Amino acid sequence: MGSFKGHALPGSFFLVAGIWWTGKHSLWHATRRNKNIGSTRLASRASQRRLEIIESSVVLFFSFVGMLAEQFAAGGPRLQLYDFAEKHWEYLMNWQHATMYLFFGLAATVNLIVHTTEVAPLALDRLMLAIAFFNEGFLFFYHLHGRSMLDVHVHQLLLFAIFGEAVVAFLEVFHRGNIILELLRCTLTVLQGSWFWQIGYVLYPPHGPEWDLNDHNNMMFITMCYSWHLAFAMLIVSALYCTVSCVVRSRLRRTPPMEMGLLKPRDPESEDEIL
Amino acid sequence: MGSFKGHALPGSFFLVAGIWWTGKHSLWHATRRNKNIGSTRLASRASQRRLEIIESSVVLFFSFVGMLAEQFAAGGPRLQLYDFAEKHWEYLMNWQHATMYLFFGLAATVNLIVHTTEVAPLALDRLMLAIAFFNEGFLFFYHLHGRSMLDVHVHQLLLFAIFGEAVVAFLEVFHRGNIILELLRCTLTVLQGSWFWQIGYVLYPPHGPEWDLNDHNNMMFITMCYSWHLAFAMLIVSALYCTVSCVVRSRLRRTPPMEMGLLKPRDPESEDEIL
Amino acid sequence: MGSFKGHALPGSFFLVAGIWWTGKHSLWHATRRNKNIGSTRLASRASQRRLEIIESSVVLFFSFVGMLAEQFAAGGPRLQLYDFAEKHWEYLMNWQHATMYLFFGLAATVNLIVHTTEVAPLALDRLMLAIAFFNEGFLFFYHLHGRSMLDVHVHQLLLFAIFGEAVVAFLEVFHRGNIILELLRCTLTVLQGSWFWQIGYVLYPPHGPEWDLNDHNNMMFITMCYSWHLAFAMLIVSALYCTVSCVVRSRLRRTPPMEMGLLKPRDPESEDEIL
Amino acid sequence: MGSFKGHALPGSFFLVAGIWWTGKHSLWHATRRNKNIGSTRLASRASQRRLEIIESSVVLFFSFVGMLAEQFAAGGPRLQLYDFAEKHWEYLMNWQHATMYLFFGLAATVNLIVHTTEVAPLALDRLMLAIAFFNEGFLFFYHLHGRSMLDVHVHQLLLFAIFGEAVVAFLEVFHRGNIILELLRCTLTVLQGSWFWQIGYVLYPPHGPEWDLNDHNNMMFITMCYSWHLAFAMLIVSALYCTVSCVVRSRLRRTPPMEMGLLKPRDPESEDEIL
Repeated sequence: MGSFKGHALPGSFFLVAGIWWTGKHSLWHATRRNKNIGSTRLASRASQRRLEIIESSVVLFFSFVGMLAEQFAAGGPRLQLYDFAEKHWEYLMNWQHATMYLFFGLAATVNLIVHTTEVAPLALDRLMLAIAFFNEGFLFFYHLHGRSMLDVHVHQLLLFAIFGEAVVAFLEVFHRGNIILELLRCTLTVLQGSWFWQIGYVLYPPHGPEWDLNDHNNMMFITMCYSWHLAFAMLIVSALYCTVSCVVRSRLRRTPPMEMGLLKPRDPESEDEIL
Repeated sequence: MGSFKGHALPGSFFLVAGIWWTGKHSLWHATRRNKNIGSTRLASRASQRRLEIIESSVVLFFSFVGMLAEQFAAGGPRLQLYDFAEKHWEYLMNWQHATMYLFFGLAATVNLIVHTTEVAPLALDRLMLAIAFFNEGFLFFYHLHGRSMLDVHVHQLLLFAIFGEAVVAFLEVFHRGNIILELLRCTLTVLQGSWFWQIGYVLYPPHGPEWDLNDHNNMMFITMCYSWHLAFAMLIVSALYCTVSCVVRSRLRRTPPMEMGLLKPRDPESEDEIL
Repeated sequence: MGSFKGHALPGSFFLVAGIWWTGKHSLWHATRRNKNIGSTRLASRASQRRLEIIESSVVLFFSFVGMLAEQFAAGGPRLQLYDFAEKHWEYLMNWQHATMYLFFGLAATVNLIVHTTEVAPLALDRLMLAIAFFNEGFLFFYHLHGRSMLDVHVHQLLLFAIFGEAVVAFLEVFHRGNIILELLRCTLTVLQGSWFWQIGYVLYPPHGPEWDLNDHNNMMFITMCYSWHLAFAMLIVSALYCTVSCVVRSRLRRTPPMEMGLLKPRDPESEDEIL
Repeated sequence: MGSFKGHALPGSFFLVAGIWWTGKHSLWHATRRNKNIGSTRLASRASQRRLEIIESSVVLFFSFVGMLAEQFAAGGPRLQLYDFAEKHWEYLMNWQHATMYLFFGLAATVNLIVHTTEVAPLALDRLMLAIAFFNEGFLFFYHLHGRSMLDVHVHQLLLFAIFGEAVVAFLEVFHRGNIILELLRCTLTVLQGSWFWQIGYVLYPPHGPEWDLNDHNNMMFITMCYSWHLAFAMLIVSALYCTVSCVVRSRLRRTPPMEMGLLKPRDPESEDEIL
């Protein structure tokens, strides 16, 4: 029903996504703040768009691969949903995971459309992200029936991060470009990633003894451990943010903006804040 | 206590309402965005108002018919609420359904008043819609006592869509004309409609075998199935939105706005965004 | 532990408060909308302030009387909280009701201070109202332990109105003068008032037979009945709003603003919307 | 597992913090409102920044001391987390308390960085405060397993104040400088402080008889008592706010702003409201 690798893999993805987003949003925020000293050299509107398209394509690719792997890897349902002979559902876990990937794939698709064409409103990408996270949390929420106490508990803690991200992404529909919300979303993504690893270590310890899944002291430790993961995620995100800010500033100071006179008075950078 | 038709009928209404709303809001959004190339020919303020009046009248008519049908159709209470002889309430289900229709009828009435007279503030239509959906969810919520597990579960899932719509409509009181919220409301309406059909198929399968209402695997499948309905609803709404956007744009491009000189400088279109 | 009169009395107060607020806010909204045709004759800034002071004084007076009545009426605790001889708390119900009155008294006091002096920020009156309603709901929430099913249910339904009012009043801190929120608050106040009467009739029927407090059909009827009370409250509030709007407009049309030339260009009316 | 002093100590800290914040925000609000009569003499932008830095340093110092005390005071874990010999977690309570202090320390660190450098966005201090309070409530929430009824209840009541503060601090990210939210946060901090003292008196009465922790009447009294603490906190905060307002105004009136001509037309005070 699960394995260490089955938790480490999504954990790694979310860790990478969180760190990537932190870098991206930090760079853009630094660009916006230092516009007057020519920061648009570092991240012009066109390069931002290109970055978004690459990111969406990568997410789309991996969610597609994920869906295929859940279906056709060893022990997968191979698109068969119901066993009519024995009258029971087949491989519901795999189907649920594939459904989660599907929603992240949809979010990536919408992101692609939003940033390549003009047809869709810009804020739609955040709404789709909110729906994808909500869907992930929704499926996890009804996933936990009849498991042991600690197993339920570690997954419930995960829901704080997931639903938190859904709420923050939804708020971003109305407050687009708010760096506070963006960094909070990055932090929760890193938290989710590192917590997936923690779940793997608790439920399927790769070496060392098994955890007693019904010990109340273990539950209390795990709760505290979640706080530590949150502190760790905040540390990572803020370190990265500071690094990017300082690098951008020092690079801008070293090379004065020569081409200043060539800048058009009304640059399209400001579109970024428009809904 | 229920039947396949009793779920398919409201399901069809919500499906039609969701698709209608998607078309309406997509058209108006396209009109607002392309105002500079003469899009007001396609949907002027007067025609928008006429559309709203027609929509409200139709909703009012159907909710009135629905109330009459619940009361006077075969096996209805015929306005009798309490059986004093045998001391019990009569046909509470029919009365509850009639109450739901009553609130949608009230919302339609207020919509009519708002769009024909000047007396009521514009945002009142969204508030009444939010209250109508909240009331529907509220009655469903206390509707579920003592049913079998799967029956309760499929109705609980319905509550996500209903309360979601209530919240989105309430947010629209403050963010009127936000296309993101409008499309989200349309999506949830389509979801609610298609899920009513699904409930009908699960609880009263018209052909084929009965579902085991206490099997945990069925519950897990149904949860995932809800996600699929959501994905399907998003697909429908976005396909419709794209079609309307493209058609509006291509029609505007084909026929250049000849009557441009006749346009008054301060057109009343902008009233639309005012609260 | 309770009586018919003990529910009818607060019910009447809330009904009167709801109707009074509806009239007040409708009048002011009509005044604001018709300012250009001289509506400030009907409700000038000074008269608004006078009205607020009178309202606050009345509320303060009644909450003071209420506290005294709970303490010193027949069967009250007379300020004695703990019976040291028999080691138990005295008359906790009376003390709880007095606490509820205390918070409404505090809200009225703050309202007085806000509208007579300049020292406090204007939005504080809505915050105190939100806290007073929250406190009422909070005490009711922990009030229900160990009662019969229907008794708990009718009080839980009351909480929807109470916490709803708390939330709406808190939103008004940020959206002061939004007529939609004001009318919603009025509606919920009327609902609360009429529901107190309903609770009195259900739990302590003054004539006629007792209700079976553990019958599930009664519970389902009561839930639906709550929706009807809500519809009734919306009807009352909207009828009153329309009447006031029409009266204001017709009076303004009959008597053209003669004194127009005497109006100062920058009238202090607009302060009303400032936070 | 707990003691009177263990609740009185954090209680005193929160009381002091609440009163300090009330004074600070009242002073700044009075400064902003009376800017035209030269109030910037009393609290210039530079002195505000100095105050913030001192405050953060003090909080940082005490949370560091708190962490050390939890680890190395008599009966502390001395940084040992797991007893491998007897296979159980060591001193989980101390570790949990240290974790709470850690988050307040992190919030203070970020506050320091925000107010000494330009690298971080201003609103980050409120977000970190919200996260610190959320983390405190989160750990308390999972802290209560298997205790007696009244013990659980008094800690649950505490959660209202803690999560309330988290929400208010999060709202301040978007509505910075809103005096209503600031005073509400101060009130909840004072409430939290005085309630810690109350918990100490209830669970570990320093003199007098023990409380019966399973008596329902005690629970009802305690709930009402919480309302009284809230009223008391509101009284303290509003008295302090009025005092500061009056003192500022009277001092400004006594000494007319001589140096008015020296003021630059565009003073940097207004930066305060910028996100």
